[in-house]
Amino acid sequence: MKELKEKILKEGKNLGGGILMVNTFLNHQIDSHLMVIVGREIADRFWHYHPTKVLTAEISGIAPAVQAGVFLDAPVVFARRVKSITMPDEIYIRTVPSHTKGGTADLIVAADMISPQDRVLIVDDFLATGKTIEALASIVEEAGAELVGIGAVIEKSFEGGRERLTPLGVPIEALAIVEKMEGDQIVLR
Amino acid sequence: MKELKEKILKEGKNLGGGILMVNTFLNHQIDSHLMVIVGREIADRFWHYHPTKVLTAEISGIAPAVQAGVFLDAPVVFARRVKSITMPDEIYIRTVPSHTKGGTADLIVAADMISPQDRVLIVDDFLATGKTIEALASIVEEAGAELVGIGAVIEKSFEGGRERLTPLGVPIEALAIVEKMEGDQIVLR
Repeated sequence: MKELKEKILKEGKNLGGGILMVNTFLNHQIDSHLMVIVGREIADRFWHYHPTKVLTAEISGIAPAVQAGVFLDAPVVFARRVKSITMPDEIYIRTVPSHTKGGTADLIVAADMISPQDRVLIVDDFLATGKTIEALASIVEEAGAELVGIGAVIEKSFEGGRERLTPLGVPIEALAIVEKMEGDQIVLR
Repeated sequence: MKELKEKILKEGKNLGGGILMVNTFLNHQIDSHLMVIVGREIADRFWHYHPTKVLTAEISGIAPAVQAGVFLDAPVVFARRVKSITMPDEIYIRTVPSHTKGGTADLIVAADMISPQDRVLIVDDFLATGKTIEALASIVEEAGAELVGIGAVIEKSFEGGRERLTPLGVPIEALAIVEKMEGDQIVLR
């Protein structure tokens, strides 16, 4: 996606250790217009799988997932990191390593948010190691629903996430793919 | 806002202690269509103040804030709870009591995300005690920017937030106002 790629090359920063900072348009400040075209593009790539629900993880997945949900006319569920007191007792929970915060993070989804009839599209800001998305997919499976696809705004192909997720047997789409980062240079496919 | 009020009366649950659960459309699952009309309504109420930036707090403020940002054609900044390694050293930070999680939560905004030229509209999911929004307003002040308004999706008028924020001298708008909750009954103004 042209606009996204230009934005990454112009404003993205390689912080080292495989971390790409995109704080000016995705991870801290959100470019509203970019999110609309990101959401439309994700919807374009997956509408024919008829997803009934979009699943993402807080925090930075929410904006692109909601925009995809708007164009797919589907509700969006975001896995929470902390079980708030407004959550029911019955939950699905996974623990994944946290890339940018260190340590681990929980992914929590109330059991009544995904039904066995749902066709679930997972949307996240990054596809890196794939461990967060793998955990979300495993929640979809536990809920008895059908996973129909995985959409990421930015893929870092050098972290092997696509290989990790391929056994799930669903289409995986990324709107921009970072092949490598060296010093100030970000190389897109 | 009619659609929002109907949704609150139909799907909202009084959990006691002043907590309103709206997990099916705002705080865990997000109703994409509702977010579009919520965003458009917030934009309608504030566009004539010419906001250049929308400021919110993770997590549940993000979806309505981004939709408002779309209709206002303004970028959205969300205050983070945890300083991620992608954040610069210079930050604004406030600590506020957390309503639904207990304890306190930090609100962190990178200093370069708000400039003194910005006209900032604060958007959040709830206006309850007003302490989170007050802290965001104080970050706007520290950044030397101008606060132009406060928009909340749902106000719980019995928690006194509007009184707390009135001294800020900016328009405060809520799309639905919960006056009281008793047992199964939610009373909207």
